[in-house]
Amino acid sequence: MKIGLLQLNSIVGDLEQNADKIIHAARSLRGKVDLCVTSELALLGYPPRDLLFDEAFIARSLKQINVIAQALADGPALLLGCAALNEHRVGKPLYNAAVFMEDGIVKQHFYKTLIPTYDVFDEDRYFESNKQSNILHFKGKRFGITVCEDIWNNELSWPFPRYLQNPVVSLQSEKIDGVINLSASPYYINKQTRMREPLMQAWAKKYQLPFIYVNQVGGNDDLIFDGYSCFIDQQGQIIKRAQAFDEDIMIMDMQDKQAAVLEHMSEEEEVFKALVCGTRDYIQKCGFKRAVLGLSGGIDSALTLVIAAAAIGSENVIGVMMPSPYSSQGSLDDATSLADNLGVKTYTLPIEGLMYAYDHALEHLFTGCEKDTTEENLQARIRGNLLMALSNKFNALLLTTGNKSELSVGYCTIYGDMCGGLAVISDVYKTLVYRTSQWVNDHRGREIIPVSTLTKPPSAELRPDQCDQDSLPPYDILDDILYRHIELNQSAGEIVSAGYMPELVTKILNMFARAEFKRRQAAPGLKVTPRAYGSGWRMPIAARLKDSSIEMKGSLSRSASEGRGCREATGEGA
Amino acid sequence: MKIGLLQLNSIVGDLEQNADKIIHAARSLRGKVDLCVTSELALLGYPPRDLLFDEAFIARSLKQINVIAQALADGPALLLGCAALNEHRVGKPLYNAAVFMEDGIVKQHFYKTLIPTYDVFDEDRYFESNKQSNILHFKGKRFGITVCEDIWNNELSWPFPRYLQNPVVSLQSEKIDGVINLSASPYYINKQTRMREPLMQAWAKKYQLPFIYVNQVGGNDDLIFDGYSCFIDQQGQIIKRAQAFDEDIMIMDMQDKQAAVLEHMSEEEEVFKALVCGTRDYIQKCGFKRAVLGLSGGIDSALTLVIAAAAIGSENVIGVMMPSPYSSQGSLDDATSLADNLGVKTYTLPIEGLMYAYDHALEHLFTGCEKDTTEENLQARIRGNLLMALSNKFNALLLTTGNKSELSVGYCTIYGDMCGGLAVISDVYKTLVYRTSQWVNDHRGREIIPVSTLTKPPSAELRPDQCDQDSLPPYDILDDILYRHIELNQSAGEIVSAGYMPELVTKILNMFARAEFKRRQAAPGLKVTPRAYGSGWRMPIAARLKDSSIEMKGSLSRSASEGRGCREATGEGA
Repeated sequence: MKIGLLQLNSIVGDLEQNADKIIHAARSLRGKVDLCVTSELALLGYPPRDLLFDEAFIARSLKQINVIAQALADGPALLLGCAALNEHRVGKPLYNAAVFMEDGIVKQHFYKTLIPTYDVFDEDRYFESNKQSNILHFKGKRFGITVCEDIWNNELSWPFPRYLQNPVVSLQSEKIDGVINLSASPYYINKQTRMREPLMQAWAKKYQLPFIYVNQVGGNDDLIFDGYSCFIDQQGQIIKRAQAFDEDIMIMDMQDKQAAVLEHMSEEEEVFKALVCGTRDYIQKCGFKRAVLGLSGGIDSALTLVIAAAAIGSENVIGVMMPSPYSSQGSLDDATSLADNLGVKTYTLPIEGLMYAYDHALEHLFTGCEKDTTEENLQARIRGNLLMALSNKFNALLLTTGNKSELSVGYCTIYGDMCGGLAVISDVYKTLVYRTSQWVNDHRGREIIPVSTLTKPPSAELRPDQCDQDSLPPYDILDDILYRHIELNQSAGEIVSAGYMPELVTKILNMFARAEFKRRQAAPGLKVTPRAYGSGWRMPIAARLKDSSIEMKGSLSRSASEGRGCREATGEGA
Repeated sequence: MKIGLLQLNSIVGDLEQNADKIIHAARSLRGKVDLCVTSELALLGYPPRDLLFDEAFIARSLKQINVIAQALADGPALLLGCAALNEHRVGKPLYNAAVFMEDGIVKQHFYKTLIPTYDVFDEDRYFESNKQSNILHFKGKRFGITVCEDIWNNELSWPFPRYLQNPVVSLQSEKIDGVINLSASPYYINKQTRMREPLMQAWAKKYQLPFIYVNQVGGNDDLIFDGYSCFIDQQGQIIKRAQAFDEDIMIMDMQDKQAAVLEHMSEEEEVFKALVCGTRDYIQKCGFKRAVLGLSGGIDSALTLVIAAAAIGSENVIGVMMPSPYSSQGSLDDATSLADNLGVKTYTLPIEGLMYAYDHALEHLFTGCEKDTTEENLQARIRGNLLMALSNKFNALLLTTGNKSELSVGYCTIYGDMCGGLAVISDVYKTLVYRTSQWVNDHRGREIIPVSTLTKPPSAELRPDQCDQDSLPPYDILDDILYRHIELNQSAGEIVSAGYMPELVTKILNMFARAEFKRRQAAPGLKVTPRAYGSGWRMPIAARLKDSSIEMKGSLSRSASEGRGCREATGEGA
């Protein structure tokens, strides 16, 4: 039996276009396959979020199911990911469904059993859990039909919930010939090779069952879907694997026995391609053709520019240099070289005159006050205003360039360098920004990002001779502390046990907690780690915490402390 | 039997202070009551959100339970709202619990059965559902113990889920003497008098059961808890009702038969008091003493100023006037009169010089371009920068002043008038802003908000002779269309059926959809309606919608369209 895996890039809410795309892809396989399979909720686009409460939208999606069935009356059969009504009127209003259609009619509904409600997933908000058996009888074979979470098991660690029983376990007892899974599984680094494939391979070997896995591809807001649909045979061999970060229509045969030769991507390559995919889709799905961003000469804006140029073409990206009296000539030269290397058009807008204009406007109020982060933030906000003016006038989406390390500790200015419609690298730690930038140069075989950008000490250049390490520990140390706290959920005490000074850990976790108000108002940022700020991050702001696992100076205050400046030198609380 | 209802204002995460407060309140009733009851999760503060994933935090909260039990060894007994571990290691890691303690030890755990996952609630993310009977035997009586959602039934309409069975139904069959409910039920307009009390009165009458209801009070981020704890007898009479929007320690006797004389608040009074409560708590719980806001002379900033002054005292509020060449003298006079009426200190920072400075900085790029919303947005953003500079320098929380009507249609400037740590009235429709402002003057018996502010045509004053109604329909029409769409979940077709022109409905819903990117980056806004933007609003940005219930011009594009300006005159898509 031959099956076509339709790994498509749906647009959330765009039912007609998504349906057309599915019909077109399935028809292209007519005569070549017996059955086509889409990703989870492919008709609606994942995640549709609160659009699922819109009854008119759901009604239209139900009509499109029949449109698709009729359009494929001459084959092939299709398993379509879509929403279905919960007719019982008890519990949640919908099911997350896989609908089987053949010969022009809908023949069977299958529903998702495990309803994920952790990290970025809110499915208990919308979907009732399946209670019935999910067996598809098709051309003499019996397939177990599962949707995304249904094949994830309870042997994974935090933040995954521990399910009582997995649908795969009950399905395998029903003498099936294989498991089909429709997924919309968001990307993070190494997820396919270290999580999904080993997971399915373990199931396959344990129960001697082939797995047919179709994942969504493309970016939707903060989530990137990597695709990587695959066919795993009953020995747990990966027989076929579709492309990552691109649409792919892949034909597989249940008889195939030859293991695939798998392409290996480094973490840096994978992250780069993920971010290009997410950036391209966010810009285009929002209806923009162009993007604009500020170029400081530093590594963050450099990598963001490379990604933007790869996503929508150099000719559609505008780089803006906004030097102040504190900007070094080296930074300007680096920004110019970078833009030249990529063929990106730049504008230069010096901000000294605006700095004086603000000083003048405020001097009668600030008489006798020391210069502090207020003035530093003003520079960042002048630049934010100029970039938004260009965005408004030239209809270009503003990309913001902050990384995860600085967003974690609040080393960034809200309404300043945080301005923008999309935060391209806000889930990338600074050390990975460096590694990925180096990969860009290595991969292209020439100096795209100037070597001096890669080697000079990082600086916000908001006062003379400023350096990030005046306020922060070296980034390898900062990133490891943050990684332990955010991704490994380690307490201060556990981090100290790993060999860090209690004072440093206290300072970093204090800065981390106090920056919550900035993260709340941050632009959507592309998720590339298991725990990203964004839709899966739900923290209170006006809260007080004290981690007693080590002796802390003062309490961790998750305060909305705009009042103490935004590029904070000390991390001391309000 | 006498019971003390501890209606307290917890700070999220501040376990030690919350425990102290509970101990102090319970001890104050020693000898006067048999049992004290707190609100839901009173020890942790509600909602703790993802702090619940912090294992060290949970461990410390478990220790505090014993601290409280020991502190109350000499009475009274206590039912404490807190988190408990799910020891089975299957399912979610925690229970949302009511712990019964007496004579210095914890004697019994009760768990929440219905785990709300809709609107602002994400409890399926953290909490396993109770499976056991929840009967407390105490001094010869049998109480059914419930937590918040457990008493809500399935006869309510969208967005409430339809539960299969309500815990009250099974509890009443066990011959109990009353139902105790620990709640953290967020406020919206009329919720107590039109939802909670009628709900409990109906249960009480149906099953001849008294209800003892303890609700949290105070603001936590976007949520305001109104308190209004109460005792309802088995005839459904409200015997006692605690204060709204303030802490209250109320003693009730199960023998009480005398119905309370209930104070009635108008909607305007209730909203005003709710916003004062939410504003005070957000400012103080974030560690601020002072607040700053811009005063335009318009109604939104006027009402926000009155609320801020009532919340933290006139002497702690700074009003800033930032006139441009387009500001009318009348607006400046109104702002001055308002501040004088309240005794609020003001600063005046003209922005004309900064407008010229930006024009100058940008003129070589904008040569040949028409003036458009770019220049209007710049004015708003200059003001945002100045206010943030004052916030930074003087350590005062910036309050933003936009209302729900303008946030709904994007009639506001991101990084401009949307700057701020808290959006005080962002869930208040413009028509209710007017009514509440009028109530302020009526209530105080004098003109606090100048009459001309109440009567002049609303204007953003960003260009000569601009008026809101150049771009928007009259606010009574706009608000009704928005209310139908947002709160009643009506489709465009249903709104047209209510008597509005299809072109107008299309235009408004288009503007509504396209403003999603602004709402995503908005400051936390105090929730006063059943469906507020904020933690209960989960909409995609990069999505395309088409409501086919009427013929639409173009599709509804939820675009991140900074590119087309922010105070949009036309609502046309990018």
